Amino acid sequence: MARSWAAVRTWLGCPGLLGCFLLGFLMGWFTKPNEPPPSTSDIYENVRQKLVDEMKAENIKQFLRSFTKLPHLAGTEQNFLLAKQIQGQWKEFGLDSAELVHYDVLLSYPNETQPNYISVIDDQGNEIFNTSSFEPPPRGYENVTDILPPYNAFSPQGMPEVKNAILAGAQGIILYSDPADYCAPGVDPYPDGWNLPGGGAQRGNVLNLNGAGDPLTPGYPAKEYTFRYKVNEGVGIPKIPVHPIGYHDAEVLLRAMGGPAAPDSSWKGSLNVSYNIGPGFADSSSTRKVRMHVHSNSKITRIYNVIGVLRGAVEPDRYIIFGGHRDSWVFGGIDPTTGAAVLQEVVRSFGKMKMEGWRPKRTIIFASWDAEEFGLLGSTEWAEENARVLQERAVAYINTDSSIEGNYTLRVDCTPLLYRLVYNLTKEISSPDEGYEKKSLYESWLEKDPAPENNSYPRINKLGSGSDFEAYFQRLGIASGRVRYTKNRKADKFSNYPVYHTVYETFELVEKFYDPTFKKQLTIAKLRGKLVYELADSQIIPFDCRDYGEALKGYSNRIYKLAKKHEEQLKTYKVSFDPLFSAVVNFSEAAAEFHRRLEKVDKKDPLAVRIMNDQLMFIERAFIDPLGLPGRKFYRHVIFAPSSHNKYAGESFPGIYDAMFDIESKADQQEAWEEVKRQISIAAFTVQAAAGTLKEVA
Amino acid sequence: MARSWAAVRTWLGCPGLLGCFLLGFLMGWFTKPNEPPPSTSDIYENVRQKLVDEMKAENIKQFLRSFTKLPHLAGTEQNFLLAKQIQGQWKEFGLDSAELVHYDVLLSYPNETQPNYISVIDDQGNEIFNTSSFEPPPRGYENVTDILPPYNAFSPQGMPEVKNAILAGAQGIILYSDPADYCAPGVDPYPDGWNLPGGGAQRGNVLNLNGAGDPLTPGYPAKEYTFRYKVNEGVGIPKIPVHPIGYHDAEVLLRAMGGPAAPDSSWKGSLNVSYNIGPGFADSSSTRKVRMHVHSNSKITRIYNVIGVLRGAVEPDRYIIFGGHRDSWVFGGIDPTTGAAVLQEVVRSFGKMKMEGWRPKRTIIFASWDAEEFGLLGSTEWAEENARVLQERAVAYINTDSSIEGNYTLRVDCTPLLYRLVYNLTKEISSPDEGYEKKSLYESWLEKDPAPENNSYPRINKLGSGSDFEAYFQRLGIASGRVRYTKNRKADKFSNYPVYHTVYETFELVEKFYDPTFKKQLTIAKLRGKLVYELADSQIIPFDCRDYGEALKGYSNRIYKLAKKHEEQLKTYKVSFDPLFSAVVNFSEAAAEFHRRLEKVDKKDPLAVRIMNDQLMFIERAFIDPLGLPGRKFYRHVIFAPSSHNKYAGESFPGIYDAMFDIESKADQQEAWEEVKRQISIAAFTVQAAAGTLKEVA
Repeated sequence: MARSWAAVRTWLGCPGLLGCFLLGFLMGWFTKPNEPPPSTSDIYENVRQKLVDEMKAENIKQFLRSFTKLPHLAGTEQNFLLAKQIQGQWKEFGLDSAELVHYDVLLSYPNETQPNYISVIDDQGNEIFNTSSFEPPPRGYENVTDILPPYNAFSPQGMPEVKNAILAGAQGIILYSDPADYCAPGVDPYPDGWNLPGGGAQRGNVLNLNGAGDPLTPGYPAKEYTFRYKVNEGVGIPKIPVHPIGYHDAEVLLRAMGGPAAPDSSWKGSLNVSYNIGPGFADSSSTRKVRMHVHSNSKITRIYNVIGVLRGAVEPDRYIIFGGHRDSWVFGGIDPTTGAAVLQEVVRSFGKMKMEGWRPKRTIIFASWDAEEFGLLGSTEWAEENARVLQERAVAYINTDSSIEGNYTLRVDCTPLLYRLVYNLTKEISSPDEGYEKKSLYESWLEKDPAPENNSYPRINKLGSGSDFEAYFQRLGIASGRVRYTKNRKADKFSNYPVYHTVYETFELVEKFYDPTFKKQLTIAKLRGKLVYELADSQIIPFDCRDYGEALKGYSNRIYKLAKKHEEQLKTYKVSFDPLFSAVVNFSEAAAEFHRRLEKVDKKDPLAVRIMNDQLMFIERAFIDPLGLPGRKFYRHVIFAPSSHNKYAGESFPGIYDAMFDIESKADQQEAWEEVKRQISIAAFTVQAAAGTLKEVA
Repeated sequence: MARSWAAVRTWLGCPGLLGCFLLGFLMGWFTKPNEPPPSTSDIYENVRQKLVDEMKAENIKQFLRSFTKLPHLAGTEQNFLLAKQIQGQWKEFGLDSAELVHYDVLLSYPNETQPNYISVIDDQGNEIFNTSSFEPPPRGYENVTDILPPYNAFSPQGMPEVKNAILAGAQGIILYSDPADYCAPGVDPYPDGWNLPGGGAQRGNVLNLNGAGDPLTPGYPAKEYTFRYKVNEGVGIPKIPVHPIGYHDAEVLLRAMGGPAAPDSSWKGSLNVSYNIGPGFADSSSTRKVRMHVHSNSKITRIYNVIGVLRGAVEPDRYIIFGGHRDSWVFGGIDPTTGAAVLQEVVRSFGKMKMEGWRPKRTIIFASWDAEEFGLLGSTEWAEENARVLQERAVAYINTDSSIEGNYTLRVDCTPLLYRLVYNLTKEISSPDEGYEKKSLYESWLEKDPAPENNSYPRINKLGSGSDFEAYFQRLGIASGRVRYTKNRKADKFSNYPVYHTVYETFELVEKFYDPTFKKQLTIAKLRGKLVYELADSQIIPFDCRDYGEALKGYSNRIYKLAKKHEEQLKTYKVSFDPLFSAVVNFSEAAAEFHRRLEKVDKKDPLAVRIMNDQLMFIERAFIDPLGLPGRKFYRHVIFAPSSHNKYAGESFPGIYDAMFDIESKADQQEAWEEVKRQISIAAFTVQAAAGTLKEVA
């Protein structure tokens, strides 16, 4: 399945200020794991504050500049060298270990000798127009080699002609970035502004992996000894060629084929029909064809994650994972390097504390993932290799992909378990926004983006997919979250940021237009760093299960409201949501009761604390159904999944939602509603089972 | 799929003496969970010894007598009343709680008004012979009502005629117990001896569940709100009628159809062919037909588990489960009540200790399962309902089905993690065998049944299925074991014990023939009780992961030896077992290294101990593949599974084994060997991943 450009990637970040924070129990450094750690609260306050104070905008800037000088495409020498550089720095910074972990996964590259392009062919068979096979490089990067032209990774090879394709079924898909989607009004194209130039084209992969990771080794890590399916048996590889072009080329192409002279928003999307004669080309376009030339090759290629460990002093077997990808389509000016630079500064800061003698209570695992752009491959393979250890020991996963996708306000997607922690932390951090100098990040965020269901809180979104948290959250059920700075969702109607996944994503783009002071990235570094710190060092894991109860209540009301559109059928087929509502009530009660017990726990009793922390850690895991969602076995979270219709968005109760989607068009209504009932039953059971994990352990 | 009688049930028990024992670290009762429990070793020794001394043969005898007076078929009032009686006793005995937990599962019963039978029909269509529709009841039980006649549960209804069925495909299956399989030479039929009378017929279910539990709710507990498939969509329900008959009826039937006058071992098994004329019936049998009359009904019926809890003092969130079934086909004289009586005496003994002020470190969960005879339903539904909590917290599962299936020596099937504990415990227990009065159970066991691969140890078998440990071991990966007294495997060639699953399984059968002193059952009670005790109360969980390494070595050599029979194909298709061998070596090294660390752990540090105990607890879980075995998704243990060809037996590396089974007959050899390679890869990865869980946690 190919997806149009408008829906290929989104994970950028959101700055914010740091500050201090609550939930301060005991902490342990230099302590024998056995005894209650010394609770000298000044040392504690010291590290909390020092960790934040240690982070500097200037460092993030330098990391960003350093990491974006060359392209770092997955599977290339440059990206391997960057991995080694990061590994070396992490060791210097003081981590206990930093290792390269490799996998041999299926990647896809343009053919070096046969460029990909689209041509218009006249009735003589002559190519009368060819699309550009490269993007004009930005100033200062003209001499950089190894810039891969725009392409869609994992497109099959082919030279289909798409005349009248609509009658025969599409034989190929041409994607272009419409100015209506990729240009903000009144903004110049890069380099004079941050809009997409007409020669820019958005790269992306066109796999439909549904969480499988490497297409040839679904479910297992792509190691040397691993059985591999043949490429034609691989997971999610499309059957027809796909290729992206810029809007200048699109305009010519559309005109040549009889479309409007200039693209507008009514002309976006796939171009797989032929158009009537229009202005621009004098002769009849009815005899013209469009021919796609796609010669990309897929090949099994070695990729490298960097895995760094800061060992916990008290519970070394409890892990907080802080990971983001390192690979980029070209320079990765925003994606992912505003995230990778933040990761680097956060590691440096934790390393500094460690070298001064401190350790967190729990172990922190830092990860620089590879091949995210090719389908979240590095992070998924590592999750597959370490699934057993992670499901037993991982407390949380915090993502560190791009830290900005705009500069307007904070954007947060996370498990309900983290709502309260995020709210609390943002209240302690001052806002980096102009005009909010004396206010907290929470305040500017709340004012700029209140939650639609309750505007006394800032909006927090459900986790979908589109970045490396996917395997950790959707497959393994590890509590996850991501934060970044974003654009104004009401005013800014363009997709992503305009130059997304083009050669124009450079250091200068960020420095000139997005975050000249690097304060927003610094804010995100502090917020991400503080999330990791609190998860790793709070005596009680800072999850609040009551918020999960509230969230479940909202999701169950919402899915019921959707179902009520079929009131007749609900009666005819005896579809009841009562078991789900009842399970949600039970969960909320169990959560409230758990919280009361948690407040009374003897904090000097390490086993009593561990027992309750284990219950907290395993709440998210309780929502995992080992049987997976229908047709998507690697999406196993019953409450959340990437939407079946837009992988970036999260869907709640996805099993029920998908069973009801377009249900009126299904031939066998009885069967279709039986499946809805089955999905309600699974959801009700899962929520009920999760409630069971919160009860007293015996 | 119907299975022949010869392979329907096996789980009986094995007595032995108790004794004292080692592995004595600290214990905690009356202790605040926080502090190291008082290690007053006399109290410790006291409870260990008192627990064993408390158990009495006479009590087991009284429980057996009381529980076998009436039939206790699953789903009947009598079995519900027995559940309540047991619940009441467990409370009296002092457990913290004892609850009935119900499920509504598909059961199957004969029709009360239309009996099941087989008839021979002459050429006029007259029924000239009908098989008996009941077993002659044993002396003293003539007035008992509610004895269900022999039947095969879940047989579809039908009246197929099986003349020439061999040409048309079998339309029905008639099972009979051949004297060659169910009579020991020189032994009288019951009640004068323990052989099967000619009127006895073996009950059993004919489902092919592969671990699914209730056929209508696979993967989920059969609660009120649960979605149910229709019966015709249910898991594993056979398509053709099946019915069991005794050997007297079989003899007439065979003669009428032209078979030999008397059945012998060459005439056992399914009767779905027509036979040539033979002696006995004067007229031509060639015009006769056999007609089956099967009118059983399946119906959704409420079943009840009794779940008792003895809360742990130190780690209440760590569970040892001790469970066995309560339901029986009729009186259940051996199966399951020699196990249920042992369960009762073990609960009584633990309860006594608790009432004297003691508690185990970890929580013990006692379970009296229902509807085991219908497909392990009660235990599987409870495992499904509590899967999340169990996979996070269950240390071990010890089964307590029938404690005898013979009276010759001990039989043990368990995870390699328990080998050493079983060996150690049996060394401390004196043998109940005649002629071994001064010897240990270990010694008599070793002498009577040495391991085939190394006769300096007694034999321990792999776990297959056929009893309630299945969901816990094969699906959830909880370390499991079962012990019982058994027959002489070399001398006793009959299947099971002769009256297995007939009305002749009575209290008197046990009292007169199998265990008149009840010493073997007492020995089993003590061994099972001690296993539970050591698992619940040892500071370090008494698992030895080095034995798993040794076992894996043996299994990998064995599967390689099997593969070597196809040496040519191994070369042609480049099939290598090296990754598996290499993973096994890695596992063994990790196990040795883990053990060295374990010996050095600071036992006064509760978190350090907990961390290593968690690693021990999760070893078995590490062998679970969430994707399951091919075609058997609820069998998820990569190292062990019930054999695809005999569910009672365990198969090692079942994925590889099944892929190679009968491989020469497969049409596409390339494809068949690719699947072998895939399975080797999965096995190698899983062993490697399990090794990873044993490494230092950070």
